[in-house]
Amino acid sequence: MTLTPGFTGGTLDRADRVRHDPELLATALADPHARLLVLDGLDPVLDEDGHLTWTSLAEAQGELLFLGFEAGEPRFVSTLPEGMPVPMGRSPALFAMLDRFAPADAANYASARGLVFWHGRNRFCGNCGTHTSVSHAGWGRSCPHCGAEHFPRVEPVVIMLAERGDMALLGRQPSWPPGRYSALAGFLEVGESIDEAVRRETCEESGVRIGAVRYVASQPWPFPASLMVACIGEALNDDIRIDVHELEHADWFSREDVRRALARDPDAPFVAPPPYAIAHTLLTAWVEGA
Amino acid sequence: MTLTPGFTGGTLDRADRVRHDPELLATALADPHARLLVLDGLDPVLDEDGHLTWTSLAEAQGELLFLGFEAGEPRFVSTLPEGMPVPMGRSPALFAMLDRFAPADAANYASARGLVFWHGRNRFCGNCGTHTSVSHAGWGRSCPHCGAEHFPRVEPVVIMLAERGDMALLGRQPSWPPGRYSALAGFLEVGESIDEAVRRETCEESGVRIGAVRYVASQPWPFPASLMVACIGEALNDDIRIDVHELEHADWFSREDVRRALARDPDAPFVAPPPYAIAHTLLTAWVEGA
Repeated sequence: MTLTPGFTGGTLDRADRVRHDPELLATALADPHARLLVLDGLDPVLDEDGHLTWTSLAEAQGELLFLGFEAGEPRFVSTLPEGMPVPMGRSPALFAMLDRFAPADAANYASARGLVFWHGRNRFCGNCGTHTSVSHAGWGRSCPHCGAEHFPRVEPVVIMLAERGDMALLGRQPSWPPGRYSALAGFLEVGESIDEAVRRETCEESGVRIGAVRYVASQPWPFPASLMVACIGEALNDDIRIDVHELEHADWFSREDVRRALARDPDAPFVAPPPYAIAHTLLTAWVEGA
Repeated sequence: MTLTPGFTGGTLDRADRVRHDPELLATALADPHARLLVLDGLDPVLDEDGHLTWTSLAEAQGELLFLGFEAGEPRFVSTLPEGMPVPMGRSPALFAMLDRFAPADAANYASARGLVFWHGRNRFCGNCGTHTSVSHAGWGRSCPHCGAEHFPRVEPVVIMLAERGDMALLGRQPSWPPGRYSALAGFLEVGESIDEAVRRETCEESGVRIGAVRYVASQPWPFPASLMVACIGEALNDDIRIDVHELEHADWFSREDVRRALARDPDAPFVAPPPYAIAHTLLTAWVEGA
């Protein structure tokens, strides 16, 4: 089964060598074909076909970060202007755009947004508190005081279906659109494997204990910079005790229920997560026998 | 196939509720059965059976961080004393201990070490540079100035075998013990899925392009706080061009070569990675047909 989660399939060659060679970076910056990603704060600006918009490097309001090469042409994004507060969460405008994205553009945007967010929230050295400066062509920050090097953070998150025969466990958070149910999820913690995080999170949120875990797929999730790791776990009990701080309801749904929800059947017992979320990929894989 | 990578199988109940309820934390701190993990800097102190050493909370030199419950008894570790530089890398003493660890103790140590390291290197707010304070019973730090909440960082790393028929690609770094070869590995970056990171890293380090990727296993790696994600990728070419900044040599090895190395056969063409490294698990799984 070939799975193509949202925000995967980026087309930029990240060209790691440019991060380690100031001459290569200077050449890329001077290239007349170099382009800057247009962002509105952290939001993308899409054309009618769902493609990202690019402009000349001269338009940059902050510091240039090297994203990679697209067909040999250098691509950059800019940090937020000094003094602009970093937008937290997702804007209403972004929600409307996520369905319209051309797939490769969504992936390229995920890298750019994650990078810009990280620079905005990590201007100071965690080790000594000094203002740091951009390094590694935008893929790091260096501290002039203590010498610490900082690199963009990626936060692994486990997202999983507990499976019990022909049924899967789904839950909903109070803030979600009406009727929406999805896979349970949570941050993987220091000292855990993926399997262990799946077991802990499922049990914390629902009281359902998990035995064997199988990996299904992963995706980058740029809000702000997660790595979503989607799994299916064999449930060892079926009685549910939800953590009311996390969920407002959780229940078991059949493969047929899930199939109807994915098909947007108005009589389905719940509303499926959107296609760009890996929960959609995970439910699709489960329905197809993953 | 049941795989049990090193540093997995921890026995502590992390009891997330304690992090959100100051009364539960106060009760745990006052519990006469509460115990403090003994560390020498960041190194463990092992008894003859490879077990961790625990003492009373009164011995703490820094701030107490709640690790979880072991059979109902609260377990803590302490931040490094204020002013002590955070040890970077692994000490020679630690290397000698890694082979001796009782498995569950290695896992419990991984969480504790990762947490202590993170507090030591993240005393200041990345957003505004202010000194932060311990929050969430040790699983966070709060900024008194800008209000930012910071949580321990886990760094996903992909580690992979490129597979070409009956052969697997292994490489060696110049700093490794003589004869040692292992799977290629590298940090997963912002905007990447696991599959994409496997393809990029393998190609960067060896020039070998990867098609389909299959997940094998994961482990926490507490040096300082990685999540190692082990995969096998189908190689699309077999000519190798190593990145000399990363590797000093890479080559294709047969299943029989790998089997002999894992068996510590003195005539094997290379020395296998140690059992606590997930590279060992990955090679074992590959030899057994994963």
